[in-house]
Amino acid sequence: MRLPDEMNTILKDLADTIASRKQTLNDGGLSNPSYVATLFAKGDDAILKKVAEEAAETIMAAKDLRQSLENLTKTNEMTTALIGEVADLWFHTMVLLAQFNLRPEDILGELERREGISGVTEKASRTNK
Amino acid sequence: MRLPDEMNTILKDLADTIASRKQTLNDGGLSNPSYVATLFAKGDDAILKKVAEEAAETIMAAKDLRQSLENLTKTNEMTTALIGEVADLWFHTMVLLAQFNLRPEDILGELERREGISGVTEKASRTNK
Amino acid sequence: MRLPDEMNTILKDLADTIASRKQTLNDGGLSNPSYVATLFAKGDDAILKKVAEEAAETIMAAKDLRQSLENLTKTNEMTTALIGEVADLWFHTMVLLAQFNLRPEDILGELERREGISGVTEKASRTNK
Amino acid sequence: MRLPDEMNTILKDLADTIASRKQTLNDGGLSNPSYVATLFAKGDDAILKKVAEEAAETIMAAKDLRQSLENLTKTNEMTTALIGEVADLWFHTMVLLAQFNLRPEDILGELERREGISGVTEKASRTNK
Repeated sequence: MRLPDEMNTILKDLADTIASRKQTLNDGGLSNPSYVATLFAKGDDAILKKVAEEAAETIMAAKDLRQSLENLTKTNEMTTALIGEVADLWFHTMVLLAQFNLRPEDILGELERREGISGVTEKASRTNK
Repeated sequence: MRLPDEMNTILKDLADTIASRKQTLNDGGLSNPSYVATLFAKGDDAILKKVAEEAAETIMAAKDLRQSLENLTKTNEMTTALIGEVADLWFHTMVLLAQFNLRPEDILGELERREGISGVTEKASRTNK
Repeated sequence: MRLPDEMNTILKDLADTIASRKQTLNDGGLSNPSYVATLFAKGDDAILKKVAEEAAETIMAAKDLRQSLENLTKTNEMTTALIGEVADLWFHTMVLLAQFNLRPEDILGELERREGISGVTEKASRTNK
Repeated sequence: MRLPDEMNTILKDLADTIASRKQTLNDGGLSNPSYVATLFAKGDDAILKKVAEEAAETIMAAKDLRQSLENLTKTNEMTTALIGEVADLWFHTMVLLAQFNLRPEDILGELERREGISGVTEKASRTNK
C-alpha cells in the first residue's frame, strides 16, 4: 500500500526534475540534452503535439484493453500498456505546465477546489452551462 | 504552501469519489445521476471522447495563453483557463482509470518507476526505440 | 461507378452550402439556425473542438472495425461507421476552411502540388526534415 | 479556376497512388520503401497516430492563423500552413481508408447522401440525437 506522502513526493519530484531540465537549457544548452530538454528547446507546439499524441495513444490502449478483457487474452499486458500511456499523458502535461511555469500543485488545487464546492457534481453544472 | 499529504489526499479522495459514483450506478441506477455516473452509464467511448476533447481544449488554452503572454493582456484569465483545462484532462483520465478499475496510484507508481530507473531520460530511450 | 464530375460536384456543392450558411448568419442571424450556422456563431474553438472530436471518433471506429474484421462480426455495420466518422471529419474540416474563407479546392490543389513534385514520397522528405 | 474533373482526378489519382504503395508492400516489401509503404508496414496504430497528430497540427495552425489575422502579420504564411495541415490530415485519412480497402469515393458518397436527405441540417438531427 502506497502511503500518502510517497504519492505526493512522486509528483513533486517529477515536477522538480522537469523544471531543472528547463533551467539547464536556459543556462546555456547541453552537450547531451535530455528528452525533456529537447522538448523545451523545440517549444510550445512540439510539447502540445506530444500531449495530442499521448491522448490518442491512451484512447487506442483503452480500446485494446477492452478487447483483451472481452477475449480474455493478454489482459495483463494491455492493462500495463494503458497505465503506461496515461503516465505518458500526465508526464507530458507536466512538461506543458513547466513550459508556462506552472506546477502539478496548481492542477491539484483546482481539482480540490471543485471537490470543495460540491463534489464532482460541480463539474456537471460547469460543463453543461 | 501545500503540504505533501494534502496533495496526496486530493488525488485519493477524487479517485474515491469517482469510484463511488461508478458503484452507485452499478447498485441500480440513480434518480438524479451525477455527471460522472452518466459518463460511466454511456461507456468507454463516451469517456474516451471526453479525454480527446479535453486534450484538444488544453492545446487551445495553451495557444491562447501564449498569445496573451505576448500581448500582455488577460494573462491571469488565460493562466486560469489552462489550469482548468489540464484539471479537466486529468479528471477525465481518472474516470477512464476507474472504468477499468485502475487508480491514480497506478500512474504515480509507473512515473516513479521511470524516475527510479534513470530519471526522465529513460523516457527518451523508450520513446525513440 | 461514380463519374469524375459527380465526385467533384459533391465537394463543391457541400462547400457552397456551408459558405451560404455562414453568409446567412452574417446577414443577420436566423430564427432557426442550422447546425452549421450554430458552429459559425460559436466561433473558432467550437469548430476546432469538433475537428478533434471527429478525429477521435475516427480512431475509435477504426479500432472497432479492426476488431469486427478479426471476429467476423458486424463488419458491414463497422465499415459503415468508419465511413460515417471520416465523412464527419472531412465535413468539419470544410467548416473550418469556410471559417477562414478557404475552400476544398485549396486542399486539393496542395495535394496535387505534392503529387506533382515527386509523388507521395515528397511527403516523406517533408515530414522527416 | 479549377475545373470539376481536375478536382476529381486529384483525389482518385492520390487514392490510386496510395493503394499501389500498399500493393507493392504486399508484393514482397521494398528495398527503399516510401513514407506511405512504411506506414502500412507499421499497421493500424501508426496510421491512427498520424491522423491524431495531423488533427492536432490543424488545430494549432488554425489558432496561429487567427492570431496572425488579428495582428496583420504573416497572414499568407499562416494561411499556407493551415492549408498544408488540412492537406496532411486528408492525406492520412486516405491512407487509413486504404488500410481498410476503402476509397475517398465512399466518403464523398456518404457526404452526398447526407446532402441528398435534407442538406447539412440532416447532420444536426443525427448529431443531436
